[in-house]
Amino acid sequence: MNENKVVILSIGDEILIGQIVNTNAVWMAEKLNESGFNVVSIQTAGDTYSSIWNSLDYAKSLASLILVTGGLGPTKDDITKKVVADFFNSELVIHEDVLTHVESFFQRRGRVLTDLNRLQAMIPHNCIAIPNSQGTAPGMYFIQDEKHFVFMPGVPFEMQGIMESWVIPQMKAIIPVDTIVQKTVLTHGMGESFLADKISLWEDNLPENISLAYLPSPGKVRLRLRGKNTTMEEIDKQISELGLLIPDYIFGFDNDSLELVVGKLLNENNFTLAIAESCTGGYLSHLITEVPGSSTYFLGSVIAYSNDIKSSVLGVDSLLIQKYGAVSQEVALQMAENTKRKFNSDFALATTGIAGPDGGSIDKPVGTVWIALAGPNGILSKKFQFGDHRLRNISLSANSALNMLRLSILKEYMPNQR
Amino acid sequence: MNENKVVILSIGDEILIGQIVNTNAVWMAEKLNESGFNVVSIQTAGDTYSSIWNSLDYAKSLASLILVTGGLGPTKDDITKKVVADFFNSELVIHEDVLTHVESFFQRRGRVLTDLNRLQAMIPHNCIAIPNSQGTAPGMYFIQDEKHFVFMPGVPFEMQGIMESWVIPQMKAIIPVDTIVQKTVLTHGMGESFLADKISLWEDNLPENISLAYLPSPGKVRLRLRGKNTTMEEIDKQISELGLLIPDYIFGFDNDSLELVVGKLLNENNFTLAIAESCTGGYLSHLITEVPGSSTYFLGSVIAYSNDIKSSVLGVDSLLIQKYGAVSQEVALQMAENTKRKFNSDFALATTGIAGPDGGSIDKPVGTVWIALAGPNGILSKKFQFGDHRLRNISLSANSALNMLRLSILKEYMPNQR
Repeated sequence: MNENKVVILSIGDEILIGQIVNTNAVWMAEKLNESGFNVVSIQTAGDTYSSIWNSLDYAKSLASLILVTGGLGPTKDDITKKVVADFFNSELVIHEDVLTHVESFFQRRGRVLTDLNRLQAMIPHNCIAIPNSQGTAPGMYFIQDEKHFVFMPGVPFEMQGIMESWVIPQMKAIIPVDTIVQKTVLTHGMGESFLADKISLWEDNLPENISLAYLPSPGKVRLRLRGKNTTMEEIDKQISELGLLIPDYIFGFDNDSLELVVGKLLNENNFTLAIAESCTGGYLSHLITEVPGSSTYFLGSVIAYSNDIKSSVLGVDSLLIQKYGAVSQEVALQMAENTKRKFNSDFALATTGIAGPDGGSIDKPVGTVWIALAGPNGILSKKFQFGDHRLRNISLSANSALNMLRLSILKEYMPNQR
Repeated sequence: MNENKVVILSIGDEILIGQIVNTNAVWMAEKLNESGFNVVSIQTAGDTYSSIWNSLDYAKSLASLILVTGGLGPTKDDITKKVVADFFNSELVIHEDVLTHVESFFQRRGRVLTDLNRLQAMIPHNCIAIPNSQGTAPGMYFIQDEKHFVFMPGVPFEMQGIMESWVIPQMKAIIPVDTIVQKTVLTHGMGESFLADKISLWEDNLPENISLAYLPSPGKVRLRLRGKNTTMEEIDKQISELGLLIPDYIFGFDNDSLELVVGKLLNENNFTLAIAESCTGGYLSHLITEVPGSSTYFLGSVIAYSNDIKSSVLGVDSLLIQKYGAVSQEVALQMAENTKRKFNSDFALATTGIAGPDGGSIDKPVGTVWIALAGPNGILSKKFQFGDHRLRNISLSANSALNMLRLSILKEYMPNQR
């Protein structure tokens, strides 16, 4: 009876002592979910015989498919294979195909095969060996009492390779999964509760088989639409309706980021960008330059952290700083204008603010930030009031600056794409 | 029979579908481990009656102490409390102390109490309510068949407050834990296998009750020394011996970072810093300015991403760039020198390299990076060859630059502190 119930079981003391985050389980859970599988439990067992045995036994009572990671490497501590052999009433034998794979894996890399490596080819005689193109330890597949067990190495890209090439397609053929389509809408500039309020009618009218999840992070809310047994067209139809409600807030979909989207817009229009950073301290430039190929549109920045540098390097009028303070509309505007001129760029962004924890006043509390954008058609600026958390303020400022540039290009140069 | 065996149980569908990383379990595992508790299993259950019940039942079979998080918020979906009441043969009743706490919690924040909020005060009649100073949902403590159960809210800082103020001290009094002392040594500049080779004799001679774990991340290896039933003096003695083997590689301990350590060294010596970044694109400045108070020693940077800007803004000789290329010792040196002069700083760091994925050649493959440091006593430079992963190259370059500055200040100005 192949019910759609899956257990993920991770083996490793390093997880139990909090030394590493169990990213394998998160990746698998997401992947299985996308593919229509229903994960009913995630478990972690220690590197002991009884812990592994008990976990397998319990997992078997909960699910039809048990996916196990970890404990298949060449190191001496791993006892998984021994427990597994006993659990499935089997014996460890050399698997010729696996041995050939291990040998050629080492040969291709010009490395010497040790006895320890050869042990990788020892697997229970009654399992099906699953090829591991990324490494030497094979996956192992067993059926017991109509339950399906797959054992994979704990190395993330080896596990991912086996999941994508074997587990998902093979198990989909055996277990009746739901058809899942999903798309994530990325928004910037509106908090979760405001957003929820703004789109509540739309949300209430979603078809029953499409669910919505809010995934908030600083400055961004991702809206994940997930449909069971429906089509991507239906999802897209819902998203177009959503787009009418919050047109300026949606900046992309799925794996987009503000820096990627802005980069594309600059590229498509042959625009160049320069930046003047004060409170963001390099983070805005870092986001831009994380994108491969950003050198085609990004010229460079001045990080003017001290007031003297704002004047000496960026040429901001020191009387202006004295009169209005470094965190002011006047200074932000001059930073952007001077940077545009100095770098001879099409656009220039400038940030100046109080990131905290110190430096705030009653008039300008920590979190006060001015952002200015100089472009071919003029200059604009905006004041933001963020919170009192330094790193969050830096991140929110940088993302708000990117979004200001995004909206400006769209409005002035690509009005049809909004 | 209070054996030192603990199960962590997280409740929440959002974990099972891979929507969020179970950071609570990692935090708890690390905290429990540090405090001498032995975590034997980490489990995640879904938001269904049977899933929660089965998990509690199974956890009880494995451990003496079962710590549960999630499912105690005010939202309607949470059914944890209902399962818990049944599991412990109890009924939900209004707990007067908790109600008073909830009311005053809302009053202090000037918020209106809803009926939903009032429900937070409904808890099983036979549990001990654990105060939650950070929120409204109380923790709940039960004993059943000599097993100890603690239920906590899933909000991380609420759970952390209850763990630190109640769970750890109270359960330590009941369960015979080990005495644990630990310290993490932070190293930069040597890969894991080289490091392991260099310190293998020292490692082999560690007392049996002190264990060593390698925790590698790009450019850094953290060495965690963990002693059972020993003293911090003994750990420190081992660390001094380690220090003699790898003196220049250890940059700090526990929660230190290179940017924090470098900031302290600059501050103590009243030095100022300016930066010229090419391949690191702002990331090096970002690391420096993540540190609160960095404005006392950090003046600013020029990010010269394009060759034109290297000449026009930083004044690098364009003939030099033509002759040697932008990624060269000559250009790195001039970037550092000119930046030091332009910003009138004591030190100036410069990075220029090929982050990738494009831009490499046979002579200068992706990952080739030159770093230069101009200081009061002269200038130095170093070539690095990193790999072909863009973000990793950016991170390794920035950290190597910080380490170059750290070693330079220590050698020239604080020779006794090395």
